[in-house]
Amino acid sequence: MTVNILFAAKPERWPTYEPLLQEALAEVGVDDYRLATDLPPEEVDYIVNAPNGPVQDFSPYTRAKAVLNLWAGVEGIVNNPTLTQPLTRMVDEGLTQGMTEWVAGHTLRHHLGMDAHIHGLNGAWTQDIPPLAADRPVTVLGLGALGAACAQTIAGLGFPVTGWSRSAKSVEGVTCLHGEDGLRDALSTAQILILLLPATPQTENILNAETLALLPRGAVVLNPGRGPLIDDDALLAALNVGQIGHATLDVFRVEPLPLTHPYWAHPHVTVTPHIASETRAKTASRVIAENIRRGEAGEPFLHLVDRDTGY
Amino acid sequence: MTVNILFAAKPERWPTYEPLLQEALAEVGVDDYRLATDLPPEEVDYIVNAPNGPVQDFSPYTRAKAVLNLWAGVEGIVNNPTLTQPLTRMVDEGLTQGMTEWVAGHTLRHHLGMDAHIHGLNGAWTQDIPPLAADRPVTVLGLGALGAACAQTIAGLGFPVTGWSRSAKSVEGVTCLHGEDGLRDALSTAQILILLLPATPQTENILNAETLALLPRGAVVLNPGRGPLIDDDALLAALNVGQIGHATLDVFRVEPLPLTHPYWAHPHVTVTPHIASETRAKTASRVIAENIRRGEAGEPFLHLVDRDTGY
Repeated sequence: MTVNILFAAKPERWPTYEPLLQEALAEVGVDDYRLATDLPPEEVDYIVNAPNGPVQDFSPYTRAKAVLNLWAGVEGIVNNPTLTQPLTRMVDEGLTQGMTEWVAGHTLRHHLGMDAHIHGLNGAWTQDIPPLAADRPVTVLGLGALGAACAQTIAGLGFPVTGWSRSAKSVEGVTCLHGEDGLRDALSTAQILILLLPATPQTENILNAETLALLPRGAVVLNPGRGPLIDDDALLAALNVGQIGHATLDVFRVEPLPLTHPYWAHPHVTVTPHIASETRAKTASRVIAENIRRGEAGEPFLHLVDRDTGY
Repeated sequence: MTVNILFAAKPERWPTYEPLLQEALAEVGVDDYRLATDLPPEEVDYIVNAPNGPVQDFSPYTRAKAVLNLWAGVEGIVNNPTLTQPLTRMVDEGLTQGMTEWVAGHTLRHHLGMDAHIHGLNGAWTQDIPPLAADRPVTVLGLGALGAACAQTIAGLGFPVTGWSRSAKSVEGVTCLHGEDGLRDALSTAQILILLLPATPQTENILNAETLALLPRGAVVLNPGRGPLIDDDALLAALNVGQIGHATLDVFRVEPLPLTHPYWAHPHVTVTPHIASETRAKTASRVIAENIRRGEAGEPFLHLVDRDTGY
């Protein structure tokens, strides 16, 4: 029977995704399908979905077997009361790889004190030799697919890495802590802190005045995760008194970051415009196709979202 | 019999090295020794030597079994006509690790286009997503201890890495080329080129007008190796016409780099003041002590310099 697949993302994505999804569906042996940006709701079997896309009311999609999210973040959809269908997150190896590159690059940048050289020493032969990575403790908050991959890449470069998650996890080469006490310990040693938690009611403002004060003085914060993880006013206050040495931020509560936001002009803040992780259409299309194959074969979906925890 | 060890480096190094050498000698079981900055030349068994140190005439050291270089580079001593004793290079794991961190950091920096964000986008939400590392070919010239370690670290981050050396070598995970034709091929694909060759008459100006022209347009050059590897005028010319997109240079023909040198002010040059690799006193002392133990036990020295090739 023909599988009806609705592509529900911004129209400009369609020319990129249409051929790649066709290719990926053929690869997994799904041959009899209709893939379109417009289908009668009651006929749709799968919704390939962007949370900012055209479908906000899922109730007419009475036959849909799953909503397959195109992005890693699901906070824009998980609380949608009309969503009764199973929801899957995107776990895209291209996205994960891109994230590890951004995280490794900015960790090394701060470790090596590169900014001084990039801004220019103006002739000053100031040989500040950084410590070796082995003497620079790094902490990663969040040990999901992205957090675990980044923690392992950083550990592979020689940094001692502590990872923290709400519930206990184990990642090879990484000291894993969890729970409230674990968070305190994870923060207390973090010369570089990397935020890779999902955005949930529990993680909102996890970096606040109290937790910022637990970090070693002059610590660097990297946030390639989610904007709401940070209490922005508290971070700015900590930057202004030197408790935080620098913050490199890729995600924000409002994006694009408004022109008037103090982050843009702050001398100890680097803004990168939500580029740390980008779903790569080719690898993402394979994940979508595999889940459609699984759905048709009656196999469990990959990366199913737990509606209770929100990720 | 008492082993007489002369420490022949700048006096300011002595307070750091004296206790570390004592500790390292004890570790390898060399207990009966004199370690000093001043000994009668004819009594000296080993010279722990910095090429810019106090000993420039080695002929009075008639009993010396070896000159143990404190640094990796030996070009300041290898052609000294008074040097008849065996000469060893420093291969310090701390130095190698520090070098891999500098190389990995600056490779990722250029790969990710970080400078634009560090200088600041001034409110422009310009989402230039870099390619994945897998689509950014990197070439390392030189596959000695430092070159091989850096090539493997970069490959571990996902970059396709080509390594080149004068004679054939093999490094796991790295496409190894050699000889004149190999150099041409290694340069032709290098979006990022890393120079880690020793300074010898054969490698002087290896990066010149002709070889720069073989690189893909806009390539980035990293030189943490040796200043004389680059024809500076040719590099400046290539930067000025965009053939080279950026050069990040850690070593120079004259150091400190003179204030009037055009590299300081060039918008597409980053100067780091010879910080990419620094011998770390603790790990270096262990290498020195191990070679003294070997000399006393009649075992072959580690890292013996071939006086014909110059490294």
